[in-house]
Parts: sequence; structure tokens; C-alpha cells
Amino acid sequence: MGKDDKSKNFNLKVPKGTRDWTGEDAALRDRLFETVTTVFKRHGATTLDTPVFELKEILSGKYGEDSKLIYDLQDQGGELCSLRYDLTVPLARWLAMNPSVQSFKRYQIAKVYRRDQPAMTKGRMREFYQCDFDIAGAYDAMIPDAEVLKIVNDVFKALGWEAYTIKMNHRKILDGMFKAAGVKEDLIRPISSAVDKLDKLPWAEVKQEMQTKGLSAEIADQIGEWVQRKGGDDIIEFLKSDPVLSQNEDVKKGIQDMELLFAYLDAFDARSHVSFDLSLARGLDYYTGLIYEVVTEGSAPQIKGKQQEVGVGSVAAGGRYDNLVGMFSGKPIPCVGISFGIDRIISILKARGESTQRAKDVDAFVMAFGGKGFTGMLTERMQVAQELWASDIKTEFSYKLKPKLPQQFKQAESAGVPLAVILGEEELKAGKVKIKVMGITDESNPEKDGVLVDRKDMVAEIRKRLPAANGV
Amino acid sequence: MGKDDKSKNFNLKVPKGTRDWTGEDAALRDRLFETVTTVFKRHGATTLDTPVFELKEILSGKYGEDSKLIYDLQDQGGELCSLRYDLTVPLARWLAMNPSVQSFKRYQIAKVYRRDQPAMTKGRMREFYQCDFDIAGAYDAMIPDAEVLKIVNDVFKALGWEAYTIKMNHRKILDGMFKAAGVKEDLIRPISSAVDKLDKLPWAEVKQEMQTKGLSAEIADQIGEWVQRKGGDDIIEFLKSDPVLSQNEDVKKGIQDMELLFAYLDAFDARSHVSFDLSLARGLDYYTGLIYEVVTEGSAPQIKGKQQEVGVGSVAAGGRYDNLVGMFSGKPIPCVGISFGIDRIISILKARGESTQRAKDVDAFVMAFGGKGFTGMLTERMQVAQELWASDIKTEFSYKLKPKLPQQFKQAESAGVPLAVILGEEELKAGKVKIKVMGITDESNPEKDGVLVDRKDMVAEIRKRLPAANGV
Repeated sequence: MGKDDKSKNFNLKVPKGTRDWTGEDAALRDRLFETVTTVFKRHGATTLDTPVFELKEILSGKYGEDSKLIYDLQDQGGELCSLRYDLTVPLARWLAMNPSVQSFKRYQIAKVYRRDQPAMTKGRMREFYQCDFDIAGAYDAMIPDAEVLKIVNDVFKALGWEAYTIKMNHRKILDGMFKAAGVKEDLIRPISSAVDKLDKLPWAEVKQEMQTKGLSAEIADQIGEWVQRKGGDDIIEFLKSDPVLSQNEDVKKGIQDMELLFAYLDAFDARSHVSFDLSLARGLDYYTGLIYEVVTEGSAPQIKGKQQEVGVGSVAAGGRYDNLVGMFSGKPIPCVGISFGIDRIISILKARGESTQRAKDVDAFVMAFGGKGFTGMLTERMQVAQELWASDIKTEFSYKLKPKLPQQFKQAESAGVPLAVILGEEELKAGKVKIKVMGITDESNPEKDGVLVDRKDMVAEIRKRLPAANGV
Repeated sequence: MGKDDKSKNFNLKVPKGTRDWTGEDAALRDRLFETVTTVFKRHGATTLDTPVFELKEILSGKYGEDSKLIYDLQDQGGELCSLRYDLTVPLARWLAMNPSVQSFKRYQIAKVYRRDQPAMTKGRMREFYQCDFDIAGAYDAMIPDAEVLKIVNDVFKALGWEAYTIKMNHRKILDGMFKAAGVKEDLIRPISSAVDKLDKLPWAEVKQEMQTKGLSAEIADQIGEWVQRKGGDDIIEFLKSDPVLSQNEDVKKGIQDMELLFAYLDAFDARSHVSFDLSLARGLDYYTGLIYEVVTEGSAPQIKGKQQEVGVGSVAAGGRYDNLVGMFSGKPIPCVGISFGIDRIISILKARGESTQRAKDVDAFVMAFGGKGFTGMLTERMQVAQELWASDIKTEFSYKLKPKLPQQFKQAESAGVPLAVILGEEELKAGKVKIKVMGITDESNPEKDGVLVDRKDMVAEIRKRLPAANGV
């Protein structure tokens, strides 16, 4: 212990792609957690918290080629475990383990782990928060799906965001389209993945990728003609009127779902930010129906047009996955959900200058002063502090035996404490304490130098001044 | 996807020593987090959140022989990392990495990882929550220490606990005692660890362990005579009057600290649960001054005497560790802190029958009914639900197109929803909805069958009935 020589050999840092959260960032994050939790609970959700690692076999075969990004624990004897990659597979595992639960509306806010190349400025980390809301259960078509999208609206409304787009599509429409164009079964997912890049790449490059993957130029062009459309009801009209697509059974089923969805979104007053975007494909294999992704101008609202969406990436995404639970239990439970990218949302809030939360939130600083022979009045400061704590007033005082008054003011100021409670020996003997709202510069303010109040009224007098002091 | 045969090979469980949190347990846990966070913030603390894994070298050499319990991540290329074992070492690492921070009052609530033998009934898990509060900084003696103990009082008071004991001791007194008795330097920690078992083992066995470790029977008896004392000011009097101990420099320094501490605890009105227990030693190497441990009767309040403390173990523990930050940076920052064992506290709350939190917390269930040709009124139910959500009323409705009224009542009842909002076609045409407080059995209650209100007054009428419905 305490061998200072040894310390010099230390590589003093956090692991690559991870970070500490403190100060204003942590305060901002907590506010965000509170906002989303309030919305989730308003819709009747309860929380599920799962272990940070799962048995390795639970995760395997769920993430396609991204499986290589999974963190494994070292084999130290016993079970083989991996850090969770998302919160969806743990939910499916839980549902499969609890067969008595046939329906579940749950939220989970927790960190997930991916051995990706970190890009901190873009908010891409190896350890990052996900914030998931899912509805599990066999229900009538598209009703829970509509509620999930309503929740997206509620969350961004609560955050005060105006400019965002919920891009949505349907896996059945997408797959039906590919089939109608003549894409062979085994090429559907690779071609789907090429189409998904249309928000980042020009059509010519996407077409090139399709051809490299084995598609003819004609088929690629046909797909290109279809998937570059986006809109609202007009997309449904287009799908219903196109002579080829309107005959495809998968597309037909998808259209039925989208018609229901739009009607339900209207009932929820949640249609305004929606864009039916036939190019949206989403990477994960497990989606089976509606898929969606939320994009925003993010930190560069001055840039107009397509570019604005590129730098930021999606801030929330999800969809319907009806078969995942069945992969574990053999008894499928249909699910639909959304995952909010907390770290990205925070990056954007910060870039917008919204990180103005006070990291520290103390109401009162108890201080003392005196002339020659000043004892420091530590006991008295402690007694007053404990009275304030007992009245639920957030309070600090100097941990020095004999602090100087300017020192104490400086400490209170640098912590942004709005009220000073100042003890003097004479005043205390007379049963009085001085209360001072910090930072009054107006000379005409009668309380500029503080106001002397009866000790017995101290708590009430502090409460009276707290809203003003906190700028409320 | 969806290959049901495959699912039969799955070992459907969570890793050994881990668990899922949901339902009432999760609600109880959240209440507990809220309680401790409120107390911590009242004392001016801010949060620090660190990565779940640290570089392996950060953790090594900090936990003595318990280092074998550390989980390592597999070497997948890149850095070698380990899951955090506690929240103290990450705090010290953070302080060392941020040399501009010379003082810090922080809390952290997070899971830690130990490859221990799980004992679930005792609340000993491999993944479990710790809830830490620490004060870092060079201050006048014992002032932050006293505030940490005040916080212990505040937390258990907020939980409504009466019967608990804060056992405390001082490493300097303990070590001075061992030296005064003639224990050699290299035997001090092993003998200290034997003494620490006095709360679990009878004196004869502890003495036996001491002798096995190389102590003479005389020295062991001398130590036994000293360390089996506990009390308050009388222990200080004993230490000051004992001819041998009162001459030992370490003991003298410890007495000075304890005298200050008791005076400060009096100022904080926080003395009542304190027991100065000369047998308390604590396992961890890094403590340098005051140490403490909180014990309670726990789940077996009917058992009197020593036995009651054995089964439960401590529910909170901590102490002063002045050299840990210096191990990383070479520049020590003195620290004192406490760690609350959330899982154990929850085990006790549950055993006391306090797990009566509603896991689900919904205010209103919107339902509809109709006669022949009933459409289900899904759009109308959605519209009403969205009005209630917009007014921050927690609301659910059936995800069925045409649910039967008894089904809807059953769903509301089983979720413990206190209010039903019932839509009928005729009523809605007349601009009315029915509000019904669930579970009224009193025939004379005029609202037994619900009350018809104007649609425009719906939100106000619901709000009026919510406190009663929630049993407030």
C-alpha cells in the first residue's frame, strides 16, 4: 500500500471505447432517463433488469456477422459467458424462461457491449446505453406497433424536439418487392442490406453493390425505381396500383398492416413525423414485420437536405420480431419494440448547448464568521446543517475547523449554491441567523447583505427564498 | 430463424449467481435507489458512473487474496480487462486520472462482480448491486467521517428501520493494540482477520486461530481481554486509562479521532445507533483509519442476542482509506466512504413483508362495450387513451379489436388499475363517458356502477378520483 514508485507503471485510463460519466453529462443523462422512464410508465410499462452477461450460447446465432463484436468472459472454470450485445435477446430469453408470462410491456435502460471501432465524436462506443421499450404478446394486428410509435412521439416531444423523422417500412413489403423483381431467395437479405445503404450512398453505388452481389442491371434498376419512393398514404396508393407489386402476396399483407397502422397513428394523433420509406431495411435478421428508425438533423441543423441525416445516424430504431422468443422456447411470442440511443441523443443535446444542467444541486451552504479568537463554530454549523437536512434542504458546509469567511463564500459560489446561512456568535446568542441569497448585485435590493431571521423561522425563511434563488 | 428444433438444445437460464430483476422486486429496488439517492443528494453528492470493466492492471493488487474472485474478459486482441470488483477502486482510478479534482463527494449505484460461491438466500450473488457514497479530499480530521455516518442514519431512517447497530472501530487503535500486546508487524493483518471473526465465532475458536497463526496463548488472551469490549464513551475512557494501551502512540492518535467523531456525531444528532466495538477489523487491506459496519436483526427479529446478527451479515460497511488514490497517481487524496448492500437490504425488506409495492402503476384502463354489431370502438379507445397520456395519466387499453367487457375488466383488475374509463356508443354520441373506481363493493356507494361525466370534464373527473382510487 502507498508505494508511490509502483504507481508510475500504471496505465491510467479506461478501456478503449468506454468512458466515465460525471458532472453535467451525468446530470443530462439522468434527466434523459427520467424523461423516457416517465413516458414508458405512462404507457403501463414495468422494468426488467437482466445480468450484464448471459450464457454464451444464448447470444450465439442472433446477430449474424456482428457476432464477432461480442465480448466473451474468460473461461475461469464453470460456464462460458458473454457480455450482452443488446437488450432484445435478454428479453426474449426471459420470456422463454417464464412461460407463464404470455404478455409483457417492459422497459430496460442498461449498458450493452460491442467490440466495434469506437468513434467517440459520433457517439459510437464499445460500452453504451440502450433504452428499450417492447410489447410482447399475441394481439390484434398493428395495435401495439402503433403504441410503440406513439411512444417515440411522446419521448421526443418531452425532449422538446421538433425536427425528426420516423422512417418506417415493412419487411413483408420489402421482401415481396425483391421477389416480385425476381431476386432469388438466398439473395434477399444481401440485397436488402445494399438497399439499406441508400441513406448514406448514392443510387449508382448501391446498384453497383447489388450487381456485385449477383443481380442483373435490369432487376437492380427495377428495385431502384421502387425503393427510392417515400411519403405517406401516397406510398400505399402506389403499392396498390402498381401492376406487379399489387399482385404479390407478401406486399398485400404488408399493405394491410400499413393501412391499419396509419389509421391507428391518426387515432393517437401521432402521424406528423412519419415517413413511409421503401428503402429502409434495417440490418438485424430477426425483424419480421414493421421496421422503423428515427433520424434528426442532429447537431448541424443549418445543413439542409439529405446530408443532414448522414452524420448523426439514427437516434432510435426498432421493429417487430415475432420469432425470437420461439428460438429459445419453441413457443413464439410476437414482440415489437424500440431502442433509443441514449449516448447519441446526449451528443446531440450537448451540441445544441442543452447541457446546462447544474451538475451539483445544493440549496444552502452553512458558514460562520467571527473576529479575534474565532473558534470556527464547527459544532454550530453541524447542528444547523443537520436541522436543514432534517427538513430536506440540500446542505453543505466547510469541512475545516476554522474556515475564513471568504473561503466559505468561494466554496459556495463555485458549487453554485444559491443560499448562504451565515452564523455569527453574537447573532446566534440572540437566537438569530443570517440568510443571504447569493449573487445579488443590485445595490437597492434590501437583502443584498442578507437578512437576519429568528433561528426558529430559519427553515421557513430559507424555503421562502429557494425558488427565487434557484431561478424559478 | 424460427427453427424450433434448435431451441430444445438451449440451456435456458441465467449464469450462476446472477438474476433477473422484475415485478415487485424491481419496484422495491427502485424505491430503495430513490431513497438513498435522495439522501446522498441532500448532502451535496453528485454521481459518477464508471465502465463495468477496467483495465486488469487497475484492479490487481487491491483486494488481497480475494483477487482470485475477479472476472476477467477473454483476450480477444487489444487490452486485458476485468469486471469491476467494487466501486471504490474505480473511484480512486478516476480521482487519479483527474488531478484537477482535489475534492469530490460522489455516489454511485451499480453492479459489481465476484466469482464467489453464490448463496442466494443470504443475498450473496456473483452479480450484485453496491451503492456507494464517498467523500474525497484533505479536510480537518473526522468531519467527513462524521457526515458519512450521519448519512447511514439518514438512509435507515428514511427506510423506517429502528433496530440496527453501526459498529465502529479505528485501524490505528486496533493495530496499536496488537503492537502493545507484542504481535509482530507481519502478523498484524492475519491476527486482525482472526479478531474480525468474533461476531461469528466464540472466543475459544478465535484464540485457536491466533495460536495457529503463531501467537502465544498469553498474547492471544491479552488481545481477547481488550477486543471483546464494546460501548461508547466508556471505551474511550478504558483506552485512556489502561496503563499499556494509553502509552501506545497509535492508540493515542485513534483516541483523538474517536473523541472528535463522537463530538461531531452529537452535533449531527447521530449517536444513537453507534457501538464502539474493539473487535471490528474489516477484511480489506486499504483502510487506514475509522472503519464501520452496519448490522441489523434482519429477517429474524424474534431471535434475541448475538445470534440475530450472524445470519444476515452487514447491510452497509466502509471506512477511511487515505492511500488508495496515491497507489495510482503517487499523489494521495484522503477518502472516506460507505457501501450499502442493496441486495441484502432488499432480502430483509422482503422478509419483513415490505415488498407490497405495486409492480405496475397504471391509473386508468380505457374500455368499451356495445350490443349487437359492436365494432369494438378501437379508434375511440385510442383517442381517449391519447388524451389521457397527454394529461400525464398512466393509461392502458386492450390490444384487441373487439374485446368483451368482462375481458377488459379482468385485464384492468389483474393489473391492479384503479380506474376504468368506459365508452359506450350512445354515451359517446351524447358527449359522455363513464368513470368507475374499481373494486367498490359497498352497495350504498352512489358511484358503485360508475358515474357518467361530460367528455370535456373527463381528465378533471379522473384526477379527482385518482387519490382515493390509489388509496391515498
